[in-house]
Amino acid sequence: MIGELNDMKNGFFELIKRIRYYNDAIAVLNWDLNTGAPRKGVFQRAEVIGMLSAEAFKLSTSDEMGDYLTYFDETDVSSKLDAITKATVRECRKEYDKYKKIPEKMYKEYVILTSEAESLWKDAKKDNDFELFKPYLESIVDYNLQFIELWGYKGNKYNTLLDLYEPGMTVEKLDAIFSELRSRIVPLVAKIKESVYQPEDQFLNQYFDIKKQEEFGLYILDRMGYDFDAGRLDETEHPFTTGINPGDVRVTTHYYPNDLMSSVMSSMHEGGHALYEQNISPDLYGTPLCDGTSMGLHESQSRFWENIIGRSRSFWQKYYGNLQTLFPEQLKDISSEDFYKAINKVEPSLIRIEADEVTYNLHIMIRYEIEKALINGEIRVADLPKVWNEKMKEYLGAVPPNNTKGVLQDVHWSGGSFGYFPSYTLGNIYSAQIYNTVRKEINDFDEIIKRGELTKIKDWLTEKIYKHGKLLEPAEIIMQVTGEEINPGYLVDYLENKYKDIYKL
Amino acid sequence: MIGELNDMKNGFFELIKRIRYYNDAIAVLNWDLNTGAPRKGVFQRAEVIGMLSAEAFKLSTSDEMGDYLTYFDETDVSSKLDAITKATVRECRKEYDKYKKIPEKMYKEYVILTSEAESLWKDAKKDNDFELFKPYLESIVDYNLQFIELWGYKGNKYNTLLDLYEPGMTVEKLDAIFSELRSRIVPLVAKIKESVYQPEDQFLNQYFDIKKQEEFGLYILDRMGYDFDAGRLDETEHPFTTGINPGDVRVTTHYYPNDLMSSVMSSMHEGGHALYEQNISPDLYGTPLCDGTSMGLHESQSRFWENIIGRSRSFWQKYYGNLQTLFPEQLKDISSEDFYKAINKVEPSLIRIEADEVTYNLHIMIRYEIEKALINGEIRVADLPKVWNEKMKEYLGAVPPNNTKGVLQDVHWSGGSFGYFPSYTLGNIYSAQIYNTVRKEINDFDEIIKRGELTKIKDWLTEKIYKHGKLLEPAEIIMQVTGEEINPGYLVDYLENKYKDIYKL
Repeated sequence: MIGELNDMKNGFFELIKRIRYYNDAIAVLNWDLNTGAPRKGVFQRAEVIGMLSAEAFKLSTSDEMGDYLTYFDETDVSSKLDAITKATVRECRKEYDKYKKIPEKMYKEYVILTSEAESLWKDAKKDNDFELFKPYLESIVDYNLQFIELWGYKGNKYNTLLDLYEPGMTVEKLDAIFSELRSRIVPLVAKIKESVYQPEDQFLNQYFDIKKQEEFGLYILDRMGYDFDAGRLDETEHPFTTGINPGDVRVTTHYYPNDLMSSVMSSMHEGGHALYEQNISPDLYGTPLCDGTSMGLHESQSRFWENIIGRSRSFWQKYYGNLQTLFPEQLKDISSEDFYKAINKVEPSLIRIEADEVTYNLHIMIRYEIEKALINGEIRVADLPKVWNEKMKEYLGAVPPNNTKGVLQDVHWSGGSFGYFPSYTLGNIYSAQIYNTVRKEINDFDEIIKRGELTKIKDWLTEKIYKHGKLLEPAEIIMQVTGEEINPGYLVDYLENKYKDIYKL
Repeated sequence: MIGELNDMKNGFFELIKRIRYYNDAIAVLNWDLNTGAPRKGVFQRAEVIGMLSAEAFKLSTSDEMGDYLTYFDETDVSSKLDAITKATVRECRKEYDKYKKIPEKMYKEYVILTSEAESLWKDAKKDNDFELFKPYLESIVDYNLQFIELWGYKGNKYNTLLDLYEPGMTVEKLDAIFSELRSRIVPLVAKIKESVYQPEDQFLNQYFDIKKQEEFGLYILDRMGYDFDAGRLDETEHPFTTGINPGDVRVTTHYYPNDLMSSVMSSMHEGGHALYEQNISPDLYGTPLCDGTSMGLHESQSRFWENIIGRSRSFWQKYYGNLQTLFPEQLKDISSEDFYKAINKVEPSLIRIEADEVTYNLHIMIRYEIEKALINGEIRVADLPKVWNEKMKEYLGAVPPNNTKGVLQDVHWSGGSFGYFPSYTLGNIYSAQIYNTVRKEINDFDEIIKRGELTKIKDWLTEKIYKHGKLLEPAEIIMQVTGEEINPGYLVDYLENKYKDIYKL
């Protein structure tokens, strides 16, 4: 019996390793596509990626996989499994059920649909043409409704989609979370707007040499403990992180000559994602557990490093001098304190990805409410531009002049990623909640940042979060680290304290 | 019958496309490994490449493949095949027979052996320790002898290995070729050595800014007609070309701040390889015919662009001014003619890859004679250092001070590539033979170079050679292009004429 169990485990992990290796190869091919692959090779590359994805898909949903899962799910076997095998079975079962329940033909149609829709969305956004995108989006929503029927749902239909990105998250929980955020953030934004003090940030838009921006970005990543022997920094149009395996986690940024902070903040943001993936425990290499436990928790790490560390007073007390040395002319009359306030200026904007820490969550709230209503049939795709603009007015006091800067701004829906947006706000909430804990557990937290000992923080996060990968589910990790369930109060406390000080409220 | 034939063809080309796509992915993964993949991800990357290679191997030797080949080889079917299918069957048959005849266990052992030997060879070379490498090399030779028995051979055993890289090449032909080269090149080298005129080339070793070297390399590649929408130039330790598909053919170079010509010449060399692959006819995409027809013909193109164009007087009459503009201080007292002579300086050296046009083929001859003798049991691996040094003395008048600069200098044997070296000299011969033809067919050939109309030459080569890929075998192409079989006389004529002029012989 033990012999059989071991044989089954070995076979199972062999199969899983093959799936993982396909995904590793696909990750490199995609990274390469985004970092300078020649234009004329793109078409064939797409076919190569398609073939490898299909092979991985076949293995994930193979009878062999089904047989292993059935075996491991038997009560007397299941009770004998170690934690890693158990969690691996759990993750494989999720994938298996998810794809097995969708007829192959339907799945293929959906893959083609979303791939066409992504390309069409680009045109629609460029030309401010919602009508062009509308039929595709309607179709994508339809497919998602069918998936929900096939997969089943508990309570709200939208729960099934949320669960794809944040296991265990529900509409019930999110409604409560967003309600608390709204009730405290909307008044905060209003007060900030009315404040007589407004930071001066024009100096951030002078000319800043790109090579020097890169030098600073590399320096900060190194200070954070990003391992350049297990990664690299490149430039791309849109910054991203690619975790191929923990020994190869690559980040990208984008340099704008007239915007100093864009590259610095995106390097820290992607650096946060990368620290998570570089520091997963070696036990989990080659399994589906070798990944962040949820999109929300992943985003919490990018946000933690970008905002909580990277937009803090202590951080710039340490590193502003380095920036001044690189750009002595541009920053000669600016103090560290001026700089800190400038990079934390709050201004309601139309575009989510340009939003500050305070208004960002309002952008997410709009998307959450729209998705929930769409999936529950309360609004139709045709209503989106109108609903979008109404909600923008309500939460942010600004109405987009066109759909390009409104409902068409984000790529997510064209790829079918309904349920993803809340991850961003969950990330912000988790990061503030973790911040509250780490300040208690690491003595002199602010002093440590002021001394630039950022790797002490990285080590703490590794111990508490990173090393576990997907072995623990997000709710377990948050409970284990902070001693309570997700609690949006910490985020609002953090924002209120920080911005009351900056805006002298 | 026609319906069946079409169905079989479709299925066959589907299978082939899958194999090709695996190889495309592997090519990108290898390129990435060599252009900056993080050190810590290398181990897992090797496993990923191993798995994908195994999948491609399985398909190439599958029963499915065997059944297709048997079907297409039937006389009444074979006679109905179009040229592309026929040549594709020919290439697949070669691969299939090659691998099917080797027991799987033996093949795996050999793959592991050569992979270990490559890494060991690096140490042996670094430490000047032939004894360390010897047992591995003995074993590799043994395996090759066994492969020859399994594959069969006609005439000399070494023919079977030659055929792997240059289909149709034999010891009989090569002996005659090398004998002619030796009888005319050895005296030429002696005369050059005795000449009172010796070009001054010290100025090439001043400091040359790397960014400017890159700028010049990119400019020349562009002038040659290298398509940057279907490729890119990167820096690596050892320059190479990766042809992923004709829409994605990447070249690399290496910049030395104290050696201007190294990067220029290697860019043109790799550029020549790349022009070949970028210009294969679209009909052949996705088949095994989408490649250079042999290593010799591939090498002829790198050599053509590097030496025949890139070391010609006409070329530098056109482009030397650009170089002077980039490096006005370093080149201020040097004329285009001085420069031309400097970059063509002939000096017997110990290292093959540093050799000039004239002595290069003597290096290859040494390797050819050693390989032939090893495979025919006339010498043993243990004799190699001694034999190497004797032949160096005989052909080049120089004895290496140690094995690092002698018998251990090249990577090829550690990977089992016996039979490969002659490709370099075949490439030189083909390039001179093609040069003799193109000068007759394109009016004012030298004037065209002087005007920088290099793409006219690229277009001619595309029409005559590149577009055919592997559809035609190397001997067919040479016959079709030049009207005769391979003829080493043109190479020696070219060298004699060129160097008599430079050295005023």
